[in-house]
Amino acid sequence: MKISDVGEKGLVALAKKIFRSGEIVKVGIGDDAAVLDVDGRSVVVTTDMLVSGTHFPPGTTPEQMARKAVVANVSDIAAMGASPLALLFSVALPRNLELSFVKRMMREMDKVAGEYGAYVVGGDLDESDKIIITGIAIGIFRNGKITKRSGARPSDLVVVTGKLGGASAGLKILLEKILKKGFERLVRAQLEPRARVREAEALAKAGLVNSAIDLSDGLASNLWHLSRESGVKLTIERDLVPDDPLVKKFCAAEHLNPDDFVLFGGEDFELALTVRPEKLWRVMKILQKKGCPATVIGRVSKGRGVQIKKNGKTSELPDRGYEHFQ
Amino acid sequence: MKISDVGEKGLVALAKKIFRSGEIVKVGIGDDAAVLDVDGRSVVVTTDMLVSGTHFPPGTTPEQMARKAVVANVSDIAAMGASPLALLFSVALPRNLELSFVKRMMREMDKVAGEYGAYVVGGDLDESDKIIITGIAIGIFRNGKITKRSGARPSDLVVVTGKLGGASAGLKILLEKILKKGFERLVRAQLEPRARVREAEALAKAGLVNSAIDLSDGLASNLWHLSRESGVKLTIERDLVPDDPLVKKFCAAEHLNPDDFVLFGGEDFELALTVRPEKLWRVMKILQKKGCPATVIGRVSKGRGVQIKKNGKTSELPDRGYEHFQ
Repeated sequence: MKISDVGEKGLVALAKKIFRSGEIVKVGIGDDAAVLDVDGRSVVVTTDMLVSGTHFPPGTTPEQMARKAVVANVSDIAAMGASPLALLFSVALPRNLELSFVKRMMREMDKVAGEYGAYVVGGDLDESDKIIITGIAIGIFRNGKITKRSGARPSDLVVVTGKLGGASAGLKILLEKILKKGFERLVRAQLEPRARVREAEALAKAGLVNSAIDLSDGLASNLWHLSRESGVKLTIERDLVPDDPLVKKFCAAEHLNPDDFVLFGGEDFELALTVRPEKLWRVMKILQKKGCPATVIGRVSKGRGVQIKKNGKTSELPDRGYEHFQ
Repeated sequence: MKISDVGEKGLVALAKKIFRSGEIVKVGIGDDAAVLDVDGRSVVVTTDMLVSGTHFPPGTTPEQMARKAVVANVSDIAAMGASPLALLFSVALPRNLELSFVKRMMREMDKVAGEYGAYVVGGDLDESDKIIITGIAIGIFRNGKITKRSGARPSDLVVVTGKLGGASAGLKILLEKILKKGFERLVRAQLEPRARVREAEALAKAGLVNSAIDLSDGLASNLWHLSRESGVKLTIERDLVPDDPLVKKFCAAEHLNPDDFVLFGGEDFELALTVRPEKLWRVMKILQKKGCPATVIGRVSKGRGVQIKKNGKTSELPDRGYEHFQ
């Protein structure tokens, strides 16, 4: 059997079976990030590998590579309810790369890390024919507790931050060289994402969230993760899901299905949260104060799986997304 | 200018200039690992990227890849005087790879992590045409203080653990398919290295070491790092450097120069330490009790650079090694 037969999901399930856990492991394999007990303090750590071609479309600038490498990692820290502290980067580069390219990349890594309150403290350099950036982020829980994927409870509401679909629509524009005017913001959503770090910190401090996951793999795929880890059923309504309005316009112009971007496209680095209904108004208030759109898209109930209501019908939401082992 | 013109050393110097530091950064770029202040506790973190072809010679088994990925990272933790706690792996794999290959790799990662007292707590999976493993190790200082590259002081003695040159001689055997009998141990030194974690923990606990560095890039290159970071001169004697006796035999048989392996070959994952002369006997006692050979190879003095005494002459030891950007 090949690894492509089991996909990323199968490999993660395998890893969960194989790797031992211990007292110091407060959160292990299967969440956005791992949490370690260091003498009574919780330290959160995550890693994300970005490979040029797959994660960096042709023409990505060094600044854009740097930004994405920082954002993909701090977004996982945010999903745990923690604050980023430090970043490391293991970088493989072609040896004939211009030095100025690396300078620009490093400067932007430093700048974007600073935007999220973190320092770049180390890394490793290697040679490779294509650019590979493995980012590592370390964070702490300044206030509040660990927010896990496994904390969703029946009757919780499902909330998402931001508008969805922009980053993957931007990727399509780049890969297929669709050069129509007016969609530049979608391209920027792909190349220059931002993470919901300040928003997640504020929510963690207020202790309002039962579970959270970042939407880097796409809404469908990530809600399935949440459902599996929490052992609950999620039911969302298609009409409630906040499509990026420009994605709708783009899809109308190009005769495409918005679902492919809004439900199944990833890299928006938004968050899905579940909250108790009586706490919703406080969650909305905190997010609105940060200028962050927040939308209730469904509910949690007993059971398993992810359902979607669309045109009066309820069906299972396919568990496919933006993963690299489909 | 290309990055190959400045080499890894130039890129690290650039990184030291570009990246900001802050209060939480106790040790930043330029040491074996970074040390963060997490609410008064020191947490050490390091990353090492291994790329198939460069770091994994043809024929490397999944178990050997796993072992090397663990050892390369825990060795950096050991060089800081810390104890490994947890490991993460960002792994890129070809999609047609056999699932059994990944299973074997994961099982061995778990086993070897356990040998060094650590758990595998997370990672990331991606697709790539060749196997890339970025390891991340996190450690703590159970007893004792941080051992930096910058702590060497004039009149310190330079001590190395183990015997040198085996891993790089093994690499030559593998790459050039030198199939003579009797050199199997050199191949194993390349494919199945071990890190001096227990030894470093014991030394750290006793507080005997002024500075330390792991010899993953080769003795010459790593002593130059130590010299630069400490702002001192190191003078070593060629006759004192502990050649792996089998490397000597191999070089005699193949008409090769042992210096290329013992001084300039890397991946032995031994440690170089500097210690006060009056503390030497205690360092030797601790290492001998762990079954670890320990050899004084030279001294630290005021000045800059690394000198080698050979055949009655003293000359500068070339700063070249086992790096991937020469």
